[in-house]
Amino acid sequence: MSAVLAPRNYAPIPQHLPARTVAVAAGDGIGPEITAAVLGVLAEADPALSFQQVTVGLKAYESGATAGFGPEALDAVAAHGVILKGPVTTPSGGGYKSVNVSFRKLLGLYANVRPSISYHPFVPAMHPQMDVVVVRENEEDTYAGIEHRQTDEVVQCLKLVTRPGCERICRYAFEYARTHGRRKVTCMTKSNIMKLTDGLFQQVFEETARDYPEIVAEHMIIDIGTARMASRPGDFDVVVTPNLYGDILSDVAAEVSGSIGLAGSANIGRDCAMFEAVHGSAPDIAGRDIANPSGLLLAAVMMLRHLGRHAPATLIHNAWLRTLEDGVHTGDIFRAGISKRRVGTQGFAYAVIERLGLRPRHFAEASSGQSSPALPAAANSAPVRPQAKTLVGVDVFLHWDEQGRDPAALGRQLATLRTAGLGFELITNRGVKVYPGGCPQTLRSDHWRCRFSGADVDRCEIPELLGLLAAAGFDVVKTENLYAFDGEPGFSRAQGA
Amino acid sequence: MSAVLAPRNYAPIPQHLPARTVAVAAGDGIGPEITAAVLGVLAEADPALSFQQVTVGLKAYESGATAGFGPEALDAVAAHGVILKGPVTTPSGGGYKSVNVSFRKLLGLYANVRPSISYHPFVPAMHPQMDVVVVRENEEDTYAGIEHRQTDEVVQCLKLVTRPGCERICRYAFEYARTHGRRKVTCMTKSNIMKLTDGLFQQVFEETARDYPEIVAEHMIIDIGTARMASRPGDFDVVVTPNLYGDILSDVAAEVSGSIGLAGSANIGRDCAMFEAVHGSAPDIAGRDIANPSGLLLAAVMMLRHLGRHAPATLIHNAWLRTLEDGVHTGDIFRAGISKRRVGTQGFAYAVIERLGLRPRHFAEASSGQSSPALPAAANSAPVRPQAKTLVGVDVFLHWDEQGRDPAALGRQLATLRTAGLGFELITNRGVKVYPGGCPQTLRSDHWRCRFSGADVDRCEIPELLGLLAAAGFDVVKTENLYAFDGEPGFSRAQGA
Repeated sequence: MSAVLAPRNYAPIPQHLPARTVAVAAGDGIGPEITAAVLGVLAEADPALSFQQVTVGLKAYESGATAGFGPEALDAVAAHGVILKGPVTTPSGGGYKSVNVSFRKLLGLYANVRPSISYHPFVPAMHPQMDVVVVRENEEDTYAGIEHRQTDEVVQCLKLVTRPGCERICRYAFEYARTHGRRKVTCMTKSNIMKLTDGLFQQVFEETARDYPEIVAEHMIIDIGTARMASRPGDFDVVVTPNLYGDILSDVAAEVSGSIGLAGSANIGRDCAMFEAVHGSAPDIAGRDIANPSGLLLAAVMMLRHLGRHAPATLIHNAWLRTLEDGVHTGDIFRAGISKRRVGTQGFAYAVIERLGLRPRHFAEASSGQSSPALPAAANSAPVRPQAKTLVGVDVFLHWDEQGRDPAALGRQLATLRTAGLGFELITNRGVKVYPGGCPQTLRSDHWRCRFSGADVDRCEIPELLGLLAAAGFDVVKTENLYAFDGEPGFSRAQGA
Repeated sequence: MSAVLAPRNYAPIPQHLPARTVAVAAGDGIGPEITAAVLGVLAEADPALSFQQVTVGLKAYESGATAGFGPEALDAVAAHGVILKGPVTTPSGGGYKSVNVSFRKLLGLYANVRPSISYHPFVPAMHPQMDVVVVRENEEDTYAGIEHRQTDEVVQCLKLVTRPGCERICRYAFEYARTHGRRKVTCMTKSNIMKLTDGLFQQVFEETARDYPEIVAEHMIIDIGTARMASRPGDFDVVVTPNLYGDILSDVAAEVSGSIGLAGSANIGRDCAMFEAVHGSAPDIAGRDIANPSGLLLAAVMMLRHLGRHAPATLIHNAWLRTLEDGVHTGDIFRAGISKRRVGTQGFAYAVIERLGLRPRHFAEASSGQSSPALPAAANSAPVRPQAKTLVGVDVFLHWDEQGRDPAALGRQLATLRTAGLGFELITNRGVKVYPGGCPQTLRSDHWRCRFSGADVDRCEIPELLGLLAAAGFDVVKTENLYAFDGEPGFSRAQGA
């Protein structure tokens, strides 16, 4: 069935849409051709939109911009508030930073938003009924890149979680759910193990949920949640997670949806946002007019909604669904029996343009909804109430590889060192208490956490204690102060026997 | 088809098997009845085995053992080297530690081994051809439980990775693959982001792989790898990962296999090992003779192989496969059209006993293989070559919430502080460089990493610098020393503009 279509069968674009310019980067590989296809659709559906082309990717890298773009690109994004970005190739070899990481860090793009939707039966899917949006925190967690090697045996990475960071992402997830008519937000963490960091994320999630009584809020442990995403993604609607878990979970969701090649994504910040396809630059098929422009087109639909331009967003989204239903398919999703007409990149864009104004018949029609929230100001600026912070000790980490690594030998030496307020308490190795007490089977590395504690410690005592340790010949490699906040201990207890 | 079976149709058990005692804990809920069923099968197939019952779980918790077992249980496990453990209920409420975490930490059970196998068509599976073993590092990573809150806004968790820990788990994975006739070991990390910690794991994996030229070794990024596990688990054979990734990945693998209720697992240490079912204690169906004992039975098969008792292991494994094929099923997997006879817990055990000596006809026969390695001594004790460690600076972390959080204002003050060898270099906030340079859009928390560096620093200069900072009124909350090892910097560079 090939629909007979009038060249302009859609209602005139509402004239009240204000003129707006967006930054556009064509990117590398198939980037230029899919970008041209998408801009063609945008020009038809939203004529008040104009584009400022910026250089991002290989050309920028080759001209010496290690971030993959120069200051003029950054200025354009800052000026216009959004960028639609084609896929980029990061050159291998040292010194080149990925464009995405650079934009994310520089512009504070704290939310990565990835819808994973199955388009059964037109695209094979493991789960025919799937429509999940993963909202991933994008700046914190172990991805802050703070790593130190401090002994022969031990390296360390810091996992940092901030209350404002948790508030911002949880608020965004609920605002997204509300404005997109979604009914449930699931938070996934490992708060049963990481009680302070993931516990904070979960706590902020639950606090935030109270402001959205119409939306179901639930928490799941990430291992069970990811497994459930793999087997029953229909259980989920919107999911919000810390950075690392979200990285894994969003890939699992995309994979089981079957439509990763058709998926768009957004990186949202307070002042700026970036929209792109999930797929890469596919240099092997570049310039052949065979790439599927759907991922970037759906990213453009997300961008229009983010900008509050719902009429053209809805027009394009419905036309795209109808194109899929009509069996007008690029080679990547062409299957005999389902597909009707094989088209190239530009041909697919023309097919979408032809269908502007038509509605899908199989899939649910895209509704015009509300704007995806740029960000409610309240979420961004809620000040954290300062609490009374009391210094109650310090964890001193030693590089120590003497006396057969006997914790008792170390403990006896440390017990002789003290300041007015700080006295030796215990030793752990890889998180397991080894002195006093301990178990001979516990593996001991050359990295010892030695806790000194007291009731009322002056902050000047810590340099004093470190001076005593240095004078006694100990190799202190790091310290972590112990505080109580409003009387509540702000540190985990030592585990083990 | 119901096979006509003689009551004793199996070859006599080889008499050369030495007498051996194993510790057994029946556990809670369905634990006692499935344990009885499994011990019945073991008694038939391996009469030289005897059992020492130990108390683990609710009874122990109620008698005041917060770890879920008393010293006599620990002594029994240490004496016999292995424990077969039924599922345990951890009471909710503070102060109770999980039995598994306690055993793991106290006994140094560094490897969690979880086979995920599909038994299509007898058990519904998303992936009919799946036979994957996830070998998860069990002691390190963010699970060491070292967390600190140090400012109003920021909490932190340490991710610790040690070279001996990486060596032990990677070596175990390859030894497991070799002795179980498996052809490939896949390592999954996020080494593209966590270059020092996950980078070390990957590096040790690649070093270890050289000793196993007959086994294919490959590395994948964990997000892509987990997604692939969800969609194409047949691509994998043995997978080895750090703790957190393995937690998520093993749950995904179990879920898509469809057989999580039938799965056993092992926790392997240098001196001791624990074998158990993956499922929980299911108190809602306890005492009704309906629970499926297969998970604990397959764990017992893993235990026999670990002990080198291959003949009874093979006998039981083949009889169990044949029972499944014969359609003799407990209620949890009973399906009209596939199942032939519904049995209870004990009835299932009798059916397996009846089939000792029979071979599966649909599934591949279990081969007698070699022992799962307790651990080659070399892997356990390879000393790390000490390198020349040079102190080249310190990252000092401040709790600072003044002057509108202006990094330049902070930087100018810090630049006035120095020791003979240490001078101020830069500031990052949540891992992003904010001074010198920086970008106004970067979110700034109240937690500032301030780097002081130099070429040849005496360790006594760090307490000196901290004293200067304290005297200037700064609130230092933690430090991380910067070292070069054999001239190579042992710390990540600051990221950002």
